[in-house]
Parts: sequence; structure tokens; C-alpha cells
Amino acid sequence: MAESWVNYAERIGSDLHLELSGPGSKRATLIGALRDAVRSGRLAPGTRLPPYRSLAADLGVARNTVADAYAELVAEGWLTARQGSGTRVAERARPLSTAVHPKAPAPAPTRHPRARTPRRSGPTPHDLRQGTPDASAFPRSAWLSSYRRALSQAPNEVFGPGDPAGRPELRAALATYLSRARGVRTEPNRIVICSGFAHALRLLFGGGGGGGNKGGSSRGQILRGPLAVEAYGLPFHRELLTAEGVRTVPLPLDEHGARVDRLTRERAVLLTPAHQFPTGGPLHAERRAAVVDWARARGAVVLEDDYDGEFRYDRKPVGALQSLDPERVILIGSVSKSLSPAVRLGWMVLPERYVDDVLAAKGEREAWASVLDQLALADLIVSGSYDHHVRRMRQRYRGRRDRLVAALAERAPHVEVSGVAAGLHAVLRLPPGTERSAVGAAVRQGVALDGLAEFRHPETDMPAHDGLVVGYATPPEHAYGGALEALCGALASSGTRGS
Amino acid sequence: MAESWVNYAERIGSDLHLELSGPGSKRATLIGALRDAVRSGRLAPGTRLPPYRSLAADLGVARNTVADAYAELVAEGWLTARQGSGTRVAERARPLSTAVHPKAPAPAPTRHPRARTPRRSGPTPHDLRQGTPDASAFPRSAWLSSYRRALSQAPNEVFGPGDPAGRPELRAALATYLSRARGVRTEPNRIVICSGFAHALRLLFGGGGGGGNKGGSSRGQILRGPLAVEAYGLPFHRELLTAEGVRTVPLPLDEHGARVDRLTRERAVLLTPAHQFPTGGPLHAERRAAVVDWARARGAVVLEDDYDGEFRYDRKPVGALQSLDPERVILIGSVSKSLSPAVRLGWMVLPERYVDDVLAAKGEREAWASVLDQLALADLIVSGSYDHHVRRMRQRYRGRRDRLVAALAERAPHVEVSGVAAGLHAVLRLPPGTERSAVGAAVRQGVALDGLAEFRHPETDMPAHDGLVVGYATPPEHAYGGALEALCGALASSGTRGS
Repeated sequence: MAESWVNYAERIGSDLHLELSGPGSKRATLIGALRDAVRSGRLAPGTRLPPYRSLAADLGVARNTVADAYAELVAEGWLTARQGSGTRVAERARPLSTAVHPKAPAPAPTRHPRARTPRRSGPTPHDLRQGTPDASAFPRSAWLSSYRRALSQAPNEVFGPGDPAGRPELRAALATYLSRARGVRTEPNRIVICSGFAHALRLLFGGGGGGGNKGGSSRGQILRGPLAVEAYGLPFHRELLTAEGVRTVPLPLDEHGARVDRLTRERAVLLTPAHQFPTGGPLHAERRAAVVDWARARGAVVLEDDYDGEFRYDRKPVGALQSLDPERVILIGSVSKSLSPAVRLGWMVLPERYVDDVLAAKGEREAWASVLDQLALADLIVSGSYDHHVRRMRQRYRGRRDRLVAALAERAPHVEVSGVAAGLHAVLRLPPGTERSAVGAAVRQGVALDGLAEFRHPETDMPAHDGLVVGYATPPEHAYGGALEALCGALASSGTRGS
Repeated sequence: MAESWVNYAERIGSDLHLELSGPGSKRATLIGALRDAVRSGRLAPGTRLPPYRSLAADLGVARNTVADAYAELVAEGWLTARQGSGTRVAERARPLSTAVHPKAPAPAPTRHPRARTPRRSGPTPHDLRQGTPDASAFPRSAWLSSYRRALSQAPNEVFGPGDPAGRPELRAALATYLSRARGVRTEPNRIVICSGFAHALRLLFGGGGGGGNKGGSSRGQILRGPLAVEAYGLPFHRELLTAEGVRTVPLPLDEHGARVDRLTRERAVLLTPAHQFPTGGPLHAERRAAVVDWARARGAVVLEDDYDGEFRYDRKPVGALQSLDPERVILIGSVSKSLSPAVRLGWMVLPERYVDDVLAAKGEREAWASVLDQLALADLIVSGSYDHHVRRMRQRYRGRRDRLVAALAERAPHVEVSGVAAGLHAVLRLPPGTERSAVGAAVRQGVALDGLAEFRHPETDMPAHDGLVVGYATPPEHAYGGALEALCGALASSGTRGS
């Protein structure tokens, strides 16, 4: 160790000792301090950090706390860890141009609108299609309390023509919340409210998906294709882009996520870095950094679909890729996973240069998002009810995932649950050639779900994987056991043990 | 009179006597019975109706009741009245293919989203720009009651992925309400919920204004241009259409409304039949009939922008043009005028052949309209609170219009208030060449409003009219007197008495 902790403490932040003795989580405090130090340049790119043991001793914290903090920051792309060369400050983390320095991420919640697979006709007793949270768990009374409070406190101007940026109350609440929960670096005036992820895509790529435009003449697109997408993803998004005339180019996936090294002349890339949809892995830290490098070098932009970022069960959620470079990443989120798709609200966290164009695309007035719902959501977040709900759902879904894993281990041990413990769905890997028969067996057991093939980009050349996408969040709590039983019954039956 | 009342009573409906002796409005009952008789074919096209006096005596009702009923049905286009040939059943009223026979229109309420003129920068103490209802009058407690009730009664599936058609509760409430209040002939399954008028235009004409499409390939437009529009109208709508690649062709206006006789090879026409926006006249009954004839003959479609149809102060609102031919007219409405543009809800009442395409354009799930707001609005309508609110606002706006007329008569007698007593705005006709100076004088008095020139289609060849569009509904009640005073001050000053 070449430097003493004093040097680090100074670089990391001179109040660190004081903060670490305070009431907050030591881990979160340390992560926040390290992140700030890297961001501000106090810890220069390439700098080697002290070993866990040394820093832990110096700061008077547990060794695991330091190890956790390093791991988090490696996962977020601030640090790199390589065998033999220790942990270093990554090359590409650079300061935010505007002075926004969110503090450490706290255990927290939300996420985003996502269209689902086609609804099948006829009743299916067991609905395990991915895409929606447990509809029976909507926090009705908390939402109503927030709605009532918001409505009673709203100034009259709320009922006039709205601002296309969205209500300032909501944008302020989101800026704070996203910083805390997702490590997002932004300001309220760089957040634009929309109806959800699909609306955001339309605003960015569409000729007519916004609210008309001020100038009156035919409006150009803000972003143009070709757009790189993950080789497995939501068909709905690809179709929407195709309808807007945007060509999508598939990036193969491997165990570290999307092969961003394959990016070439695309102008933008759409990723699900926290939890690849649907295959379930996080984007590796090296690739997080690499894709931002690519965007900088090419003048391109990264779209971060942060659809279920708060739902991580094995560890704290990995922070948003957006924090690596707020001028190169557009983060898009919504309440469709955290609350319900029935509340048609989402948000775009934008690089400064896109804000005006997005507002112009959205139109002169708020033409889409219910203003009252915006106020209610702002209250829900500020009052802490949103965090409370997300924590509750995180526990519930974690329990469901654990039950799924346990049941499969017992009943269908040939089926592997892949991906990290996160989100509202899991992928069950199947032996090659057995996906179709497994879906069929499930349907015969009254289970609605999709095979991985549904999500595969038609033009990808990566090898196909056989698997089932299980939306374990979808059924109401009382129905989950039955759905799981039926699923296991289907998988334990013939036809899924290899063709 | 060639036929006795017995024949008419039979044709009109054998229960008519009974109904007329019932508790309901005799006028409404008679209108409903006559309308049904025409619709069903019991009174054939061309049939001459008995003189007021005879029918009144026969039915035992006041002569004025019959005169009123005839006038209403003439205004709606069911009957025609010509000097010398009496009142006859119009040629073009034909039965609805599906068996929907709404009863007589009752005194009732709503309407529709409309973008407003560009917001000026800087504070304007007196806001008389057209486009929004009094924001201070939003029925907060009634809305909250409905919202609470709707939320507590909602089945869990409400919080799942929504139906792009909209909630069935709301579509059922609207079908009944629009029949009663606007004479609309439809069924819930021909109503599609949207975010407002602009969204409806995008769904109909847009390549990307919907929610993506099921098939995945690039989607065609449902309607195509060229689209005839009124020579004066909202620039926002024209711009939106232009952005979608739709050419708009202006129809001149005269004292009977849009010159629909000028329609030729357009494929669709967009009209504001109840109250031309902004000039303020209703479309003449002959033209109502003529435009439907044109649409039938050409295989074209009429878009009825029913933006303020319930707000008529001198008489009952003229029924919707849609009732003349539900298979040729798309009626579009919203709550932006009746409640607030902050509630982003509107509806399209569609000919049957468009329903599937509009739903496909909207997407596989509800991607736009807040489902909870939909349920709240349904409750507001069904509970009668919506009618109550519209009645209250009708009184308020009528009072404001009366005050405007009286104040101008006294303070600026050279200014003529044109158009019918209706809606949320009035047009003040000015001597030729004085509009610009009048707008300037208003601005100097701190009054924000627009001149007629703002609304003129750039390609029309009709003579320009000088005038001010006064949104008398816009200010809160307490501020209206001051705004009116400032406006009169501006108009009484020099520069508006002819150039």
C-alpha cells in the first residue's frame, strides 16, 4: 500500500470519518463518499485504491463494508477490479458538467412501463406472463391518501393547461428519489414526464408521437436509427421502432450481457443494464464503462431502460448506468413495475442537449399524462409511501422467486433458473430443443407464459437459447402457489428433459 | 293538413300520448319520439309534418312545445323547414344499422381538449386567451369522491395491463351520457378512450401516434388526407396534421358556417358543427345534412370536433351531427372544456368499420390514459355530479358572456359580439384593419388574448375578418370583472374605431 489512509480520507472527503460515525448506513456513506471523490476528480482515473483490509482498519469499519462498497462501485463502473492489479478508479468516470452530486444510494425502489406479450384469448387459470406487478398489491389506501392530499393542496393553475415537462413537484421528487435509489445524477429541469417507456421511445424517434410541434412544420426525429438493441428484448419495443421507421440492429448477449464491443456505426443503443430483459443478467462493469466510451467517441447516445432497477434481492441494486455520464445516457423509467401500468406515468432523465427538443416534441401543453396522477405520485414519493411499497413488494417477489427456485430444484432439477435474483421474472433455461414442448406442457396445465423465442430479435445470429420466461410477480399472492404447482407439474412431465 | 294526428301519433309512436302525460319534459319527449320515428323510418323522408297548431292541439301540448321540437330537429338535420313548403322529414336521415335508439336529449353537459394559443412570456394580469375553463372551478370534492369510490370498488384487474379501448365502465357511462346530452347514437363498444382531441387526430392520421401495433410492421394511416378543415380553426390542429404529413384544405366560412358545398375530392372533413371555432356560429341544418350526403356519396368521413357542445346559453344545445349518420361521422370529445385539461381524457365515437383499426393503432394495452382517472370520470358521470358541474359552469359562463355583451354595449358600442351565445369564448368583430391595434391596446392594458388572424388558415382565399377571440371562461371568477374592465378600456381607446 503506497499511501496512508490519511491521503485517502482527504481525497475521499475530509468529513468521511464524521459521516461514518453518524446514524446512516456505513456502507452507503462510504459508497457515496467514494463516488463523489471519483466524480469530482479528487480520486483521479487510474488511481489504485487501498486493499479492503487497510482502508477498513483506517476508517474503523468492517472489512466487508469496504469490500461491499468496492464491489458496488465496480458494478456501477466507477472502479475497476482486475486480478493482480487491485482496485482502481476507472478511466471513464468524469465529472458532471452541472453541479449535481447526489449522495449515496439508499435501499430504494421503482420502475418502468413495459408492454407485455400478446394476451391470449380464453381464461388461463395461472397467469405467469411477465410484464406486470401483482395487481392485487396496488397500494390503494396510500395512493388515495396521496391523491387526496395532492388534490386539496394543488394551486388552481394545476387545472389549467399543463407544462409538457410535467409538474415541477413530480420532477423534483424524482430527481431526489432517483439519485438516492438509483444513483442517477440529474436535476428536475432535465426530467421530462411521459406516459411510459413506449411514449418515451416515440418522443425520441417518432415523427408524430409527440404533441405536435410549435413551429408548425414537419418535425424531425430527435434520435435516428440505426439503433442497436439487445438480441433478446421486448418485441413490442422493436415493433414500435419499426413503425417509426427506425431499424434495430441486434447485439449478441453472453454471460456478461450485451456485446457492446460489437457496436459500430449505430447512433444509439438501447440497453437494460441493471437486469437484462429477459435473460436476467446485469451488464458487466467493464461493458458499462465501454458503452459510455463508445457513445462519447461516436457522438452516440445510450438509452437505459431501467425497468426494474430497484428489484434486486441478493444485494443492493446496481446503480444506474446513467451516472457514468449524464450527458451520454438517457435513463427511462416508470411506475409500471413498481406500482401499476394503470398509472400511466414514466420519466425521461435527459442529457441537457435533448431537453428542448423533447419538450418541443411533447407539445406546447401537457397532452398526455394526467396532472392529478403526477401530483399524487409526487406526494407518494415525498411522503415515503413509495419506498415503503417498493420494500414490501421486494420482499414479496423475493419470496416468490425463492419458492420458484426451491420448487424447481425439487420437482424439475433439470431446469436451471438463470440470471441474478432480481426483478419480476425469471428465465428457466431448458435443454436445447425443448422450449416449445415445455410451453405446450405449461399451457396444458393452464399456465400462461412465454418461451424465450418470443423475445428473440429476428435478425440476430447468436445461438438460440431454450427457456421459459416466468413472470412470478403477476399472480395475486393467494394464487401463486397454485401457479407454481402447475408450472412444476408441466416441467416435471415429459418433453422437457432434452429432445 | 292532409293527415290527421292519429296517423302521426301512430307513426311517431303509439305511446306518445302516454309519454306526454308523464313526468318528463314534454318538449324532450316529443323531440325524442319524432327523432325515433324519423330514424326508424316510420316517418319517411320527404313526409310533410303537420303545422304546429294542429299537432299541438292533437297532442294536447302547447304550440310552442311543438315549434321548439321542430326547430330542434331542423337544427339537428332530421327535418327541413322551407318557406312555403312547411316542415318535412329530411332526405338523409337514415336508420342506424345497430339497434341503438337513445331517447330524447336532456339538459346536459361536456367537452373536449383543445390546444391553446402559444403562451406568452411574462405575467399578464388579465388572461382572456381562449382554450381553458376556469381553473378555479374544478369540482375538487366531487372528483375526489368519485375517485375514492372508484378506487375502492375497482376490481384488481384494473391494476393490470389495460384494454386500449378504455375501461368498460367509462365507455358505458359515455354511451348513455352522450346519447342524452348530445343526441349521439352509439354503443359502448364503438367508443374508444384517448388522451384528448390531439391524440384522436394522431390515432386517425398518424404513422406513429398510436401505441405501436400488433403486427409489428409499419402501420398505415387509418384516414388519409387531403383533409378539409374550416378556414378558421386551431393552428395547433393544423400543425399536428401537417407534422403527420396530412394536407389540410381550407373551407370558407359564411353566416351559415363552413361552405361544405365546396367539398370535392377530400377524403375527410373536420368540422365544429355545434359552435364553429373560433368564429362562433353553428353549422346550418342544411349543411349538416349536406356534408353527411357528401360523405356518403364520396365514401368519405366527417370528423366532428364537439369541443363545447353542452355550453349553449340561449337554447338547448343542438344535437351532435354524428346522429345523422353514425357510420359516416366520427365524433371526438373530451373533458378539457367541461372539467379541466389536467384530466387527460377524451373519447372517439366511431363508425363500426374503424373500431378495430383505431384499437390496433392505440396498441395492445392501454398506454396513454390513466385507468384510475377513467374510473373516476365514469363515476362522476353516473353519479350525476358531472351534469351538476356542467350546469353550474353553464350558468357561470353565461353570466360572463352577458356581462361582456353589456359592458361592450356601454363602453365600446362599435364592437360587435358575433356568433351564438355558447361556449367558453366570444368573437368581437372589429372594423376592418383594426385587429392588430386592438390586440396591442389590450396587451398594453395587461390583457392577453388573440386576434382572429391567429386562427386563419394560411391558404384560405376567404376575406379576412378583424376580431378578437375572448376566452371569457379562462379567469377565475374574482378576476373576471377586472379583466373585462381592462378589455373595455382597451377597446374604448383609440385605434379600434376603424383605421
